[in-house]
Amino acid sequence: MIYFDSAASYPILPEVLSSIEEGFKSYANPSSSHIMGLALSQKVEDVRLQIADSIGALPSEVVFTSGATESNNLAIKGAVFGSGKPFSEIHLVTSQAEHKCVLNIFSYLEGLGCQVSYIKPNAEGVITLQLLEEVVTENTILVSLMHVNNELGVINPIQDIGEFCFDKKIKLHTDAAQSFGKIDIDVMDSYVDFMSLTAHKIGGPKGIGALYIQALRTSNIVPVIHGAGQEEGLRGGTLPAPLILGFGAALSSFQNSYSKINAELEATLLKGLQAKGVRCQINGANAERVKHIVSVTLPDTNPVVFMRNTERDFCLAQGSACSSKEIEPSHVLSSIGLGRDLASKTYRLSFSHETTVDDIKAFVQRVAELIE
Amino acid sequence: MIYFDSAASYPILPEVLSSIEEGFKSYANPSSSHIMGLALSQKVEDVRLQIADSIGALPSEVVFTSGATESNNLAIKGAVFGSGKPFSEIHLVTSQAEHKCVLNIFSYLEGLGCQVSYIKPNAEGVITLQLLEEVVTENTILVSLMHVNNELGVINPIQDIGEFCFDKKIKLHTDAAQSFGKIDIDVMDSYVDFMSLTAHKIGGPKGIGALYIQALRTSNIVPVIHGAGQEEGLRGGTLPAPLILGFGAALSSFQNSYSKINAELEATLLKGLQAKGVRCQINGANAERVKHIVSVTLPDTNPVVFMRNTERDFCLAQGSACSSKEIEPSHVLSSIGLGRDLASKTYRLSFSHETTVDDIKAFVQRVAELIE
Ligand SMILES: Cc1ncc(COP(=O)(O)O)c(C=O)c1O
Ligand SMILES: Cc1ncc(COP(=O)(O)O)c(C=O)c1O
Repeated sequence: MIYFDSAASYPILPEVLSSIEEGFKSYANPSSSHIMGLALSQKVEDVRLQIADSIGALPSEVVFTSGATESNNLAIKGAVFGSGKPFSEIHLVTSQAEHKCVLNIFSYLEGLGCQVSYIKPNAEGVITLQLLEEVVTENTILVSLMHVNNELGVINPIQDIGEFCFDKKIKLHTDAAQSFGKIDIDVMDSYVDFMSLTAHKIGGPKGIGALYIQALRTSNIVPVIHGAGQEEGLRGGTLPAPLILGFGAALSSFQNSYSKINAELEATLLKGLQAKGVRCQINGANAERVKHIVSVTLPDTNPVVFMRNTERDFCLAQGSACSSKEIEPSHVLSSIGLGRDLASKTYRLSFSHETTVDDIKAFVQRVAELIE
Repeated sequence: MIYFDSAASYPILPEVLSSIEEGFKSYANPSSSHIMGLALSQKVEDVRLQIADSIGALPSEVVFTSGATESNNLAIKGAVFGSGKPFSEIHLVTSQAEHKCVLNIFSYLEGLGCQVSYIKPNAEGVITLQLLEEVVTENTILVSLMHVNNELGVINPIQDIGEFCFDKKIKLHTDAAQSFGKIDIDVMDSYVDFMSLTAHKIGGPKGIGALYIQALRTSNIVPVIHGAGQEEGLRGGTLPAPLILGFGAALSSFQNSYSKINAELEATLLKGLQAKGVRCQINGANAERVKHIVSVTLPDTNPVVFMRNTERDFCLAQGSACSSKEIEPSHVLSSIGLGRDLASKTYRLSFSHETTVDDIKAFVQRVAELIE
């Protein structure tokens, strides 16, 4: 089985596995005031510092959550509910290409009476500063735009967007689930107020993530999970110390694991398909992109036949990736203008450190056979 | 180091550790539609069925969460926000002896305009049916009472409470963090509408729990974490399959691990202290209790001296257990009438399968030395 789905979840790294195991053997509750609790708590704080350092933040600005989905909820709902404004006076901005969880959060807020603008990305899937400028109003209190798109791999110009939002005194949230650990970002330089992170896209465990909150202690964020005072009162629940240690180990190791041959893998795919005469198009090809995510449209494939003939050998994402089992036209592909038909013939391949040139060649071969 | 803090977090069971490790090696996203995703998803569904079976529920009524804290949030806020009633017409009932996270959820709801009654438990720490009957009003839509109290170990009469609530058409939530896997409960027999569960109190991993929601698909619960459609749309985020497998393994193994000598351990403690002439009182002694949690007040100890002289050898809970590092009088002890002084001289010992009679004797000996 060849795994082309690292963007949905990245293979766990061996160093991570041993950290987690170590962590589970220290089974105390890190909030306990006894020595075992305190020792564990210290290790948790080390990881908090490590995460903060990696994004130019302070450890006091990092809250642990169960993953990027929860972080998105905490940032967006937390900021809206904490704004002290009536819903009818709140305007929010996001994009049509966000992760489904973000779209669902905004749809919920619309139901409460907030106004939401959903920016349509440009043809590459990118939200440019200009597109943002067009929708911002006097009432805009929060902009939420992802750093890297999970279906296309395209990178949004967060630095430009951050400077603009800072000037306008609008809070900026970015969902960095797909970029964290892969592209450098400094939250101070980029004027990011909230940034969502997750461990399982960089070889860490599922079930742990974090939210960066600028000047957390003076920010008026309403918790999503009320608890017993953990995480500055912003996020309740016993801290899952073993997962946090695994998160730290992933962050340490991922840089070395992140494949240096991603660009070569993509080139092999493209050249291979062309050499076999297979029509193909890489979505977002003209934008800045992370190179381990490739969204390829193969107009001459039949998606059902394709699936039947690849599913025993290749793991890849068809339709709406990493969210549901339904094969429905992806909202991201629709937002960049792909019709239902082409969208259904689009496949997302995402690479890990285990992916080889031969894997790509095997895939190319299979595609060519199916089309003949 | 002797660990007397299983109620804060239980030692991880060896079977659990191997399940988790196994799980992390299957690194796919269980929502992915490819074979690796589907295989993992099947394992997740097996655990959902196992949990459901253990409480007399249907698998379609069980939602995975990050732990009991999140489950409490989802049940209580979800039911209130989903009720469709204006906050000013909502009356809610809970008790003064609930876990801090529950109290914080209710305090948040009070801030939104709901009315909340906080029942003061009887002298043993129990909420009797009569105490509940006294506070219910025409506007009561939800009662939230824990099954087993985490500081005292006392058991609330959930069956009687459930029948009463059912008759009155009031929804009942119970936080079963401390009872799940330890005392049998059948949600149908007990007319429980929502029940919060967690894995790390029964030898499972931290960071995973579940919420039972009666007739989930027709219930109007508003999600706390909006996501990409996972868990019937009620709880977003990539399912942490490895933790779920660990949860299942814990549930399978815990029954055998749950110590048969808990009552003997408690008796050894009591008799030992009495034999050494140490004044002591077990809180909630006259109520039905789980026997692995013992809250003992030692009026002749000085809490600071006690801590200094025990902390290198014993892990136990002083002050507000499992929530914060501050040694402040516990709200639970206050609710049963212990003054500040006696509350500060109260220690919670909670046992695991690793606890021995000799551990208790060592503790008794230390206490006796400190008091002389
Ligand atoms: C852009 C983006 N945001 C959020 C998520 C959800 O992350 P998590 O599974 O950590 O909740 C994902 C992946 O599933 C993602 O790609
Ligand atoms: C009664 C009770 N409810 C809730 C919790 C919180 O559980 P979790 O750590 O799974 O969020 C605990 C323990 O910490 C508890 O004892």
